[in-house]
Formats: sequence, C-alpha cells, structure tokens
Amino acid sequence: MAGQAGEEAGLMSKAAPSSLSRLARYLPILDWGRSYNGATLSSDLVAAAIVTVMLIPQSLAYALLAGLPPVVGLYASLLPLVAYTLFGTSRALSVGPVAVVSLMTAAAASKVAVGGSPEYLGATIVLAMLSGLMLMAMGLFRLGFLANLLSHPVVSGFITASGVIIAASQLKHLLGIQAHGETLWEIVMTLAENVRDTNPYTLAVGLFALVFLVWVRKGFKPLLLRLGMGPTAADFVAKAGPVLAIVFTTLAVALFGLMGEGVKTVGEIPVGLPGVALPAFDPALWGQLAVGALFISVIGFVESVSVGQTLAAKRRQRIEPDQELVALGASNIASSLSGAFPVTGGFSRSVVNYDAGAQTPAAGAFTAVGIALASIFLTPFLFYLPLATLSATIIVAVLSLVDLKKPIELWHYSKRDFIAIMLTIVVTLVQGVETGVVVGVVASLALFVWHASRPHAAVVGLVPGTQHFRNVRRHKVLVDPGLLTIRVDESLTYLNSRWLEGFVLQEIARKPDVRDLVLLCSAVNTIDASGLEVIEALNRRLADAGVRLHLSEVKGPVMDRLARSHLLEELSGEVFLSQHEAFAKLAPNAEQGGQLSKPDIVTGGEPSAASEREGD
Amino acid sequence: MAGQAGEEAGLMSKAAPSSLSRLARYLPILDWGRSYNGATLSSDLVAAAIVTVMLIPQSLAYALLAGLPPVVGLYASLLPLVAYTLFGTSRALSVGPVAVVSLMTAAAASKVAVGGSPEYLGATIVLAMLSGLMLMAMGLFRLGFLANLLSHPVVSGFITASGVIIAASQLKHLLGIQAHGETLWEIVMTLAENVRDTNPYTLAVGLFALVFLVWVRKGFKPLLLRLGMGPTAADFVAKAGPVLAIVFTTLAVALFGLMGEGVKTVGEIPVGLPGVALPAFDPALWGQLAVGALFISVIGFVESVSVGQTLAAKRRQRIEPDQELVALGASNIASSLSGAFPVTGGFSRSVVNYDAGAQTPAAGAFTAVGIALASIFLTPFLFYLPLATLSATIIVAVLSLVDLKKPIELWHYSKRDFIAIMLTIVVTLVQGVETGVVVGVVASLALFVWHASRPHAAVVGLVPGTQHFRNVRRHKVLVDPGLLTIRVDESLTYLNSRWLEGFVLQEIARKPDVRDLVLLCSAVNTIDASGLEVIEALNRRLADAGVRLHLSEVKGPVMDRLARSHLLEELSGEVFLSQHEAFAKLAPNAEQGGQLSKPDIVTGGEPSAASEREGD
Repeated sequence: MAGQAGEEAGLMSKAAPSSLSRLARYLPILDWGRSYNGATLSSDLVAAAIVTVMLIPQSLAYALLAGLPPVVGLYASLLPLVAYTLFGTSRALSVGPVAVVSLMTAAAASKVAVGGSPEYLGATIVLAMLSGLMLMAMGLFRLGFLANLLSHPVVSGFITASGVIIAASQLKHLLGIQAHGETLWEIVMTLAENVRDTNPYTLAVGLFALVFLVWVRKGFKPLLLRLGMGPTAADFVAKAGPVLAIVFTTLAVALFGLMGEGVKTVGEIPVGLPGVALPAFDPALWGQLAVGALFISVIGFVESVSVGQTLAAKRRQRIEPDQELVALGASNIASSLSGAFPVTGGFSRSVVNYDAGAQTPAAGAFTAVGIALASIFLTPFLFYLPLATLSATIIVAVLSLVDLKKPIELWHYSKRDFIAIMLTIVVTLVQGVETGVVVGVVASLALFVWHASRPHAAVVGLVPGTQHFRNVRRHKVLVDPGLLTIRVDESLTYLNSRWLEGFVLQEIARKPDVRDLVLLCSAVNTIDASGLEVIEALNRRLADAGVRLHLSEVKGPVMDRLARSHLLEELSGEVFLSQHEAFAKLAPNAEQGGQLSKPDIVTGGEPSAASEREGD
Repeated sequence: MAGQAGEEAGLMSKAAPSSLSRLARYLPILDWGRSYNGATLSSDLVAAAIVTVMLIPQSLAYALLAGLPPVVGLYASLLPLVAYTLFGTSRALSVGPVAVVSLMTAAAASKVAVGGSPEYLGATIVLAMLSGLMLMAMGLFRLGFLANLLSHPVVSGFITASGVIIAASQLKHLLGIQAHGETLWEIVMTLAENVRDTNPYTLAVGLFALVFLVWVRKGFKPLLLRLGMGPTAADFVAKAGPVLAIVFTTLAVALFGLMGEGVKTVGEIPVGLPGVALPAFDPALWGQLAVGALFISVIGFVESVSVGQTLAAKRRQRIEPDQELVALGASNIASSLSGAFPVTGGFSRSVVNYDAGAQTPAAGAFTAVGIALASIFLTPFLFYLPLATLSATIIVAVLSLVDLKKPIELWHYSKRDFIAIMLTIVVTLVQGVETGVVVGVVASLALFVWHASRPHAAVVGLVPGTQHFRNVRRHKVLVDPGLLTIRVDESLTYLNSRWLEGFVLQEIARKPDVRDLVLLCSAVNTIDASGLEVIEALNRRLADAGVRLHLSEVKGPVMDRLARSHLLEELSGEVFLSQHEAFAKLAPNAEQGGQLSKPDIVTGGEPSAASEREGD
C-alpha cells in the first residue's frame, strides 16, 4: 500500500506539474533520487556487481562481433551507463553493447570501411553519434507514442522467441564447441555439426552452474531460512547466488587447471580507460551511414523498450517511451564521445540486473564504476572465469521470460492476436530479431486495418415495453416496415466508411417499403472526412430513392464537428436526441401494433463463429 | 428511379448469389453485358473513337518515356484493353501506357540493361509479366481491402496535385517549347528557361483548341439546341466536340503548311500488329526486377483505383478493388504477351473516356479495335494532328478534377484530414506522384494511430430524474464520492489501452474515497488481447488499493469473448447489464441525497478546442 500511495502521489504531481517535476520529466534522476536510501543503495550495488561481472566478457565479445578491438567494448560500457542513469526511466534496464545492435553496426560500418582499419572504428563512432542524435530528436518531438504500435502479443512473442534464440546461442559455451548464426536454424545446425567435439570438462562446469542457478532461484532462500538466517540476510545471500556460481566455477578452473583440459575462460583483459573526443564531421560519410544508423536506432529502441516495459510491468512500474528515447540518445552520444559504437538496453543483462534486485538506474552508474575498477583490479580473477558459467547465467535468466502458454491463451481469446504472436515468434526464430519485430508490427497493423475495415453494424428494433433497441437477429423486437434503423458499432473512418455504404444500400435494397432510415450513432465516437463523405453520398443517393436519412443519439463532440460541415443543412431527415424519440415519431403505430422480428441467432451457451461478428 | 431499381436488384442478387452471379464476380462482363443495348453501344463507340485518337500519340510518347521504340506503345494499347474489358469493373477506366508507370518502368529496366538494347525490351516485358502476376495474386487473395488505406483526403489531394502536374507538363506542347521533369518545380523551371522560344503558330493552334474545348463543355449543347437540333442529337454532337477540335486544327496544319512554321504534329506512325509470345523465364533476371515490379504494381493499382473510384462515384456506381486487381493483372499479362511494358488505368485518358460518355468497359475493346484500324488507315490523317491540340484536350480534362475548395472544407471539419490532404498535395507536387501517394497513405495511418492512441474517456454521473449518464464536466449530474464511473468512448485496442490505464489510475489517485470503479463499456465495440491485458492489470492493481473493478453495458460480442478469458473469474467486482443498475446497487443513496457535479465545459455555441476532445 505504501508503494501504491507513493505512486498515486506521483500521478498527482503529474496532473499539476511544478517546475521541479517539469524538469524531472527530462531528468528522472531528480524524481527517484529523492527517495534514494540505504536499502536501494545496497540492492543497486549487488545488482551492479553481478552485472559488471557479466558485462565485462559480454562487452568484449560484442565488440568483436561489431568487428572492433575487444577493448572498445569496455569503452562502450562506461559513459553510456552514466548517461542512462541521468536520463533513463526504467529501473532495471542495463545499457551497453548488445548482440543485435553490434551485428547491425558491423553490417553498416563494413559498407564504408575495411574491418580492422582506423576508418572502420571511425565509422562505428559516427554510427553511435548519428543514432544518438536521431533517438534524441525522436524523444524531443515526443514520437514515443509510436511504441504503442508494439502490441502486447508482438512484445510477448518477440521476448519468447528472443529468449529461445539467446539460450540456444549460449549452448555452445556450455558444450565448449563452435556455433554461430542469427536464427535458431543456423544456431542449431552449427551446434549439431560440432556436438561431437563437446568438451566434457566444460560441460561439467556449465551443467553445475546451470543446476546451481536453477536451484538458487527456488531452493536457496528457504534453505538459508531453515538454517536460521534472518529473512533480510537470506534474501541478500540468495540474490548473490549467481556470484557464488561464478566464484565456485572460477576457483575450480584455477585450482584444478581446467584451462589445460580445454575449458574456455574470459582470459587476458587489457587495462586502461578511454579518452573523450568529438567525432570528425564528414558530411559524405555521415550521409552514407544515416540509413544504417536509423535502423540501429529504431531496432535498438524497440528492443530496449520491449524489455524495459516487461520488467517495469512485473513491478507495476511504468517507463516513459519519449524519455527513453532521450536517455538512449544520450547513451549513444556518450558512447560516440568515448570512441566506441552503438549501445542500447540489453535483453539478457537487464533481466539479470532485475533478478539481482536493481532498484534504480543508479545500478547502471555503479556498473560503470565496476567496469572501471574490474578492468584495473580484478583482471587476474576474471582471467579464470569460465564462459560456460556466464552462459548458464544468461540461459537461466532468459528462459524465465519464455511464455509458451500465451499463444494458447490468445488462440482462445482472439485469433487476430494469435496470428500476431505466432508470426512474431516464427519470423523472429527463422529470420532474426529485427525482421521478427518489423513483421510483428506490420502484421498487427494490417490485422487491425483489416478488422477496422469490416466493422459491425446491426439492424435494430424496440424491445417491447422498454426504450431499448436491440439487434433484430438476436432478439424479438418491434419493427416497422416503413422504418429501418441501423446501429453502427464503430467510429466512421476512412478504413470502414466504404463498407458501411455497401451495408446500408444492401439493407435498403432488401426492404422496398422503407421510407425512413435512421443511423443510430450511440457507438460512433468520431466521423472523419471520409466517413462524412460517405454519409453525404448516402443522403443524396437515398433521397433519389425516396428514402429520408435521419441520425439519432449523435455524441456531443461528433455533433460539434458535423455542425461545421454542410451535412446538417443538406440532410433529408432529422437528427434525434434519442432513438426512442425517432421511433415514436417515424413509426407512431409500431409500439402498439408493430411486427415482431424473428431472431435467427441464439445468444448464450457456446460462443459461435456467428456471435463473434454479431451484436447484442 | 429505373437505374436505382436496377442497382437494387443487382444488390439483391449479390446477397444470395447464383452460380452465374458468382462467375460474374470474376467476369463482370457477364453482368453488364446482359443489359448492353444500342444506346450504350453508340455511347461506347463515340468514347472509343475519341480515346483512340488520344491514345495513339500518348502511347507513342509514353513508350519513348519508357525508353522503348514508339511502336511498342501501340502494342501496349491492344490486348491489355481487351483483357480489361473482360475483367474490369470500372465503366470508364481507360487502360494502357501511363506516364508515371512508364517512368518507373524506365527506372527499373535501366538497372538491368542498356536503353535501346534487346535486353532492355526483354526487361520491360518481364516487368509487365511480374507486375501482372503480382496484381492477379493480390486480387485472388482478396487484398483489395488495402485500398481502404487510401482515405478520401489522400485520393482527393493526389488527384488535385496530379492534375496540376499533368496540366503543367502539357504547357510545353501548347507553347511549342522544350520542358521536362517529374515534379511541378522541375517542369516550371524548364518551361521558364525556354519560354522565349515560344512558337506563335503552335500557341495559336493550342489556344484555339483550349478555348474551343472549354466552350464546347459549356456552350456548345445550348447553342445546338437553340439552332433547333433535338436533345439527343445535340448531346451526341456536343460530346464529339473534342473530335471537332482535332479535325479543325489538323486541317489547319495540313492546309496552311503550319508544320513548316514549327508546329509539331504526331508525324509518321509505323504500321503493323504485334505477335503474341511468352517471355523467357530467367530466375536471376526476374529476381532482380521483382522489387521494381512490385512498386509499379502498387502505384499502378493506386492510380487506377483512385481515378476509377472518382469516376464511379460521379455516376453513383462502384468498383470492386479485388476484381480491379485481377483485371489490371490480366491487362499487364496481356501487355507482356504482346511484347510491351506495364500498363494501368490512365488518369487523363479515363477522364476523357468518361467525359466522352463511355458507358461500359466495352469502350476499351472498341478503342483497341480503333488503335488497330487507325494504325493502318488513319496514318496520313494523324500525321498532321498537332500535339498542341492533344495537350489542350488533356489540360481541359484534368483541370476539371482539381478541387482547391476541398482543403478549405477539411480545415474546418477536421485538422487531421487537412494535414493528410495538404501533405499529399505538397509532396506530390514537390516529389512526384509515387512519393505523394506513399506519404499520404503513411501520414493518414500515422494520424489515425496517433488519434487512436489518445481516445476519449469521461467520468460520468446520473442525470437527475432519468436513467441517463453524462459527462460530469459538461452536465449537472449526480455523483457519489465512493463510486467512480468512467465511460470509455472507444474500442480497447493495443493502440490505446496503455492510455486508458494511465487515465484510470490518475482519476483513482485524485479521488481517495473511491471504493468502486465502474467501466461503462457502451461504446466499446471490441477488446483485443492488449486491452484485456490492461483490464486484468487494472483489476489486480485496484484490488491492492482497495478498489473493486466493475463493468457495465458490455456488448454481446465483447462479453462472448471475455467469457473465454480469465477476467470474469478474477474480476473483483461485477458485470452489470445497465449502468443504472450498477449505480443503484453501488451508490444506493445517491439518487436521493447525492452530490451534483460542477460542469466546467459549456456546450453549445461556438465549438471550442476543448469540445473537440470532450464527450457529451
């Protein structure tokens, strides 16, 4: 309840913003920093320590993936994290080098320079700067609403499929073999080719770490409590579980000389911190890299926002997409100034950060300090850290986000959303994460447009003895042969107005006695210019056929708008405040001696295909 | 009334399709062919004659534009027209070579072959085949609903801007000077450069034709009637007006030797009809041309459907976008078999066809016969036909479609639609027709998404003495401090559900006494999976804060669907059939001793910015 109340207060202050809270919108650290205390500090420090240990080898590996010297990965893991701490709204997002973005960086940079050359590094620095400027511009112009395009099924499907791909890609470290690829198929094929080279020592270390980490999530804290430890201490030690896995396996490798048996470790790490410099402005080069940078920005933002939203929802927090754009923009500019390459909110690392208990974005700044300290003091320790342990950490973290029940739920609830999630999952697995998200967003939008272009409308009649009007196909209601009332169950927009025109003309053609047509607009929330055009066309057309067009129960804002068009002057009929009023005037005898409709759809019981498209 | 009745009968047969009318869906000629008679025949023949005269020089010019020998333009104007006659649904569309598509053909073909080479012609033949197959596939998979993406403002803006560009591009023939370009700016600049070279004889011929054609549209028929001609004959002769302009100016050029004075004419036309052959299947070449063909298909379809819809609406007819895809696909396959290049429904020619009185697609087949006959018998006559006369015909035709009042109307009715039309007009003028349409469609969709992502919702209370609930900010209504009712004025979809979550939590935070929250769903037509997710999250969240969540007036199909989710089991409150029932149960004392709300929005009078977003 305390958290809830605090959040309500936050919402209150948003409703009437002071100048401080207005500034806090762009510097969220002013908001969460005020309630920062010892408890959040210790949580953040633990998370930062674990993420640091995870980030060092990851940043080295992702720099290699981007075609750069490994040390550049460390440069990308210092200032960008500090920038995100200042500007970010996600409490658990871990910014830094990320696999997908590193791959895209390599693709873009290799178009303008040869890998390994100084020009190549120059290109990645420019990509980071361009990407940062683009993200920041999108944030300042408040284009974050575009994140609404990511429907829940698309985000859920993307996360599930990404989790599977990341887990599969980590199996090679668990087995001590070679494998590569961006899609599940490629990864599985290369794993299968090399599985006979499995290193038994590596597998033993990896399986130990895996089993230990799974157990630590479920059984460690109860064990500590049974051993008499206090709840707070037990919680803290249980969260340090992944660190224990690292300590145990690192010691095992060092003490038993497992490197000689083929167990791969993090190995030698160069020491040193980056200088800060602005990249040179070369209009031709920047122009060549602009499209690649845009793609990196959008995919990076999408990945970052997906994971940020999921983690925020788990703790019932929210992130601000517009501000996330600003924060990621600042992080990329910081990465460029550090002489590195594009960064974003990483998937697996953020999950580990969240699981390790990160409470605020400060964990990111502490991670940066950790990276700086570790690269100076912990090099000998990290030298023996087996890659299999890090892979086990990643696998355990991402598999907890794989939700295979969701597609089944969606199958029962909405075929449209089921199609969206399955397309996203399958395309992500088969074609990679970028294509997966793009296809998911496009498919959601196409399905939305398709659905919106065939809305529901029903012919209605009066429920005897009431003032309610219901679908003649579902209820025994009073109708009059000279009066036709059509209830439109959707806003009239360009996507569906052509459909409505066809529906009305078909109903009129079926009923030659009709002299008055009423459009019951209680569910029409807006009428755009295309919808107005269709109503005007219907008005002229029906007048030629001797039918007057009336409107009823038009909402206030819709009426305000219609008053600014010529429709109300030209309308052959009237605008009625209530449908009952229209019925009483246009069919005065129907309430006493009217006909009863013959329903052909049975409501209640099993939901049928027909009921999905038919109204009440 | 007779036409109306006939159309109603057509709609009836659609509602209960026989096997013949099912076949007629794919072969519309079976439909309109049944009512074909002497009157439609003579109208079609007149239109075909006029379009033939117009099409011969156009097809020669557009073939040149596509980088091909002029005679190929004639090949593209024979079989494709016959194919459209069999499959098309527009009564006035004139299929054949078209400027925009010809330009795009040149762009695509020149990527794989050198202009003028046999490989280049081979590439344009493949482009026509690919484009035909793509269009036909889209038609058979019923993707015509995608034409709904073209909102009325986008179509109107596209037509206006295209009309201006086409008219400007024809000025060079009227002045007898050189000019070129795809955008208004390019055309005007090159005209300005060369305007001092204006040929006075050409200008005289062109101005005569222009004035004559303008007069013929307005003053010719009344004159004929005054001269004692019967109404039918006057109508026929008046429609032959453009032919008279051609006859007069052609005779003038021939008799006064104006070609020697620099008046440009159609000149020599090669004689002969094309053979029919399948293009060779070369997977590599087809693959290279696929993207270009897709773009040609989509833009060609968009252009064709735009003009088809506009002309159909003028006569209160309709076209079937799915069948149009099949028809244009067949036309392009026919063009490929004839050894030509991509075709589509042409803008200016269709307008002329319509103005000349074409009643059925048969006019197209007659035009094809006309092209065949003309290229054999009329060559000497066409030799002297001045280009300035044809330009005048085009200018008069397209300028009648330029609608400059529409943006002003939209400004008053809907700013969103105003933005869409202005963007379409400006981008089309500045960047050309392809970009114009793409930007128009994308802008419409973005504005739609933006609007849908911030829907309207209102806190409502009971209008004293009734069972109606109205916005507390607009009306003096009864409210209860323990009960909050929010009316959601939109379907809950992934585009807006996140917004609703914020709105509800903000209202709850403002009113600490609230113990029951009712979502009044009378305007909620669907709830997709993302919307369900948000309601489930709100239910859990409000329960933590001691607030029960209720629903009221949920529509039949929405309720059917919710019954398939876990929401109804988990809901902390109830689902009420009517809002009044909910109010009576949850605030039993409010109807007698409740508080009255204090409205802060005044309705009626001048529409304000606030009223645009506020409900009734």
